[in-house]
Amino acid sequence: MSNPTAAMIVIGDEILSGRTQDTNSNYLAGQLTLMGVDLKEIRVVSDDKVQIISAVNRLRMKYTNVFTSGGIGPTHDDITADCIAEAFGVSIDIRSDARAALAKNYENPEIELTEARLRMARIPDGAELIDNPVSKAPGFSIENVHVMAGVPTIFKAMLAGLLPKLTSGQEILSENINLKMKEGDIANHLGLIAQENPDTSIGSYPYYTNGAFGCNLVVRSPDADRVQQVAALIRKTFSED
Amino acid sequence: MSNPTAAMIVIGDEILSGRTQDTNSNYLAGQLTLMGVDLKEIRVVSDDKVQIISAVNRLRMKYTNVFTSGGIGPTHDDITADCIAEAFGVSIDIRSDARAALAKNYENPEIELTEARLRMARIPDGAELIDNPVSKAPGFSIENVHVMAGVPTIFKAMLAGLLPKLTSGQEILSENINLKMKEGDIANHLGLIAQENPDTSIGSYPYYTNGAFGCNLVVRSPDADRVQQVAALIRKTFSED
Repeated sequence: MSNPTAAMIVIGDEILSGRTQDTNSNYLAGQLTLMGVDLKEIRVVSDDKVQIISAVNRLRMKYTNVFTSGGIGPTHDDITADCIAEAFGVSIDIRSDARAALAKNYENPEIELTEARLRMARIPDGAELIDNPVSKAPGFSIENVHVMAGVPTIFKAMLAGLLPKLTSGQEILSENINLKMKEGDIANHLGLIAQENPDTSIGSYPYYTNGAFGCNLVVRSPDADRVQQVAALIRKTFSED
Repeated sequence: MSNPTAAMIVIGDEILSGRTQDTNSNYLAGQLTLMGVDLKEIRVVSDDKVQIISAVNRLRMKYTNVFTSGGIGPTHDDITADCIAEAFGVSIDIRSDARAALAKNYENPEIELTEARLRMARIPDGAELIDNPVSKAPGFSIENVHVMAGVPTIFKAMLAGLLPKLTSGQEILSENINLKMKEGDIANHLGLIAQENPDTSIGSYPYYTNGAFGCNLVVRSPDADRVQQVAALIRKTFSED
């Protein structure tokens, strides 16, 4: 049985202009790895209807889960919920459960729930709410698409409620071997080890710090024994020469 | 005249597993904004031939420039150059100029240029080399696709040589207004300001820090006067009430 898969869509001009460094996809990636869901693809798209709808429709057909972050706030540039409704061909309107969740954030909801804020209670027909313990405005899941806020604190809090409800897979275990050697000096042997151990995946991640090259070798497999065996073989090959 | 466009493809399992936070796309985004090239899309894909080729072929048809990072080292998991050759339907082999560039990194190139290292001199037919002042192994441009290393220091150094050769556009200027107010309290007025100033783009980026909400409003336009006018209007509307 292969693991469930996933894609992430990060929505926001601020990422594409370089103003903001996206960290939500890295956080999601780590969480999914722990629960055995394989993140296959991340896309960052702008606050543009055509781009959002096309990414959602392409990726939801291809992967078990699609996660989005960004564009569900109260301002004019928050268009994600409408795009999702359009992608699924369903209607969208203020929903009483979402309105009730949102109201909890305000002392005087009758006054404070402005027209702008009520935009955050607009939920595509058939979606299920995702709890937002930080600022109450909910996210939502529709079929296999999970729509969350872009603010990292809120994104994480929403994920904490959502992930336990999703189907998990076999956790991919890994071991990291740091070598103060250049990749070119280990590549031949490492290639052979990779070839002889095709049930594990071996990645080589070079770095360059303070004028010196090194690399991290990462052995991955759902089988703890195999990870250990291959990691030991790599250590023996390169450290004890 | 609209600005040239761009897409970025980040290649690497280590990003999708959450092991590594990609920072190259954020750096590229900032550089492109300064030179008036609109970054429209970022995709992160795994070290998988089908995924890399399909992303390259899709995006190179759609945008003026495509930048890739990752997968051009000497190890078995470095498959980017081969994928690019296949995407363009051209052959790939060790090229003498790339070999000569690479050789500069070694005191005894005849011995140190191992078979693995020579993989880094394999260049798709018709490509132009991108200089690598850090570790010599070159990147390359083929038509509108620019292939660079994933190690951030090297990625930045390659870009420094490449970007001045590309067609630039009109720089999009921006001004940031930080408000210690909730988005919901400004959304109605802000939406009106956005509607009345459609020649500028106004983004609202909420944050949540130390238990308090705030937002950054960013006004963007190639016209410095208009940025200033609209930013002043926003300041007046929300700060002097």
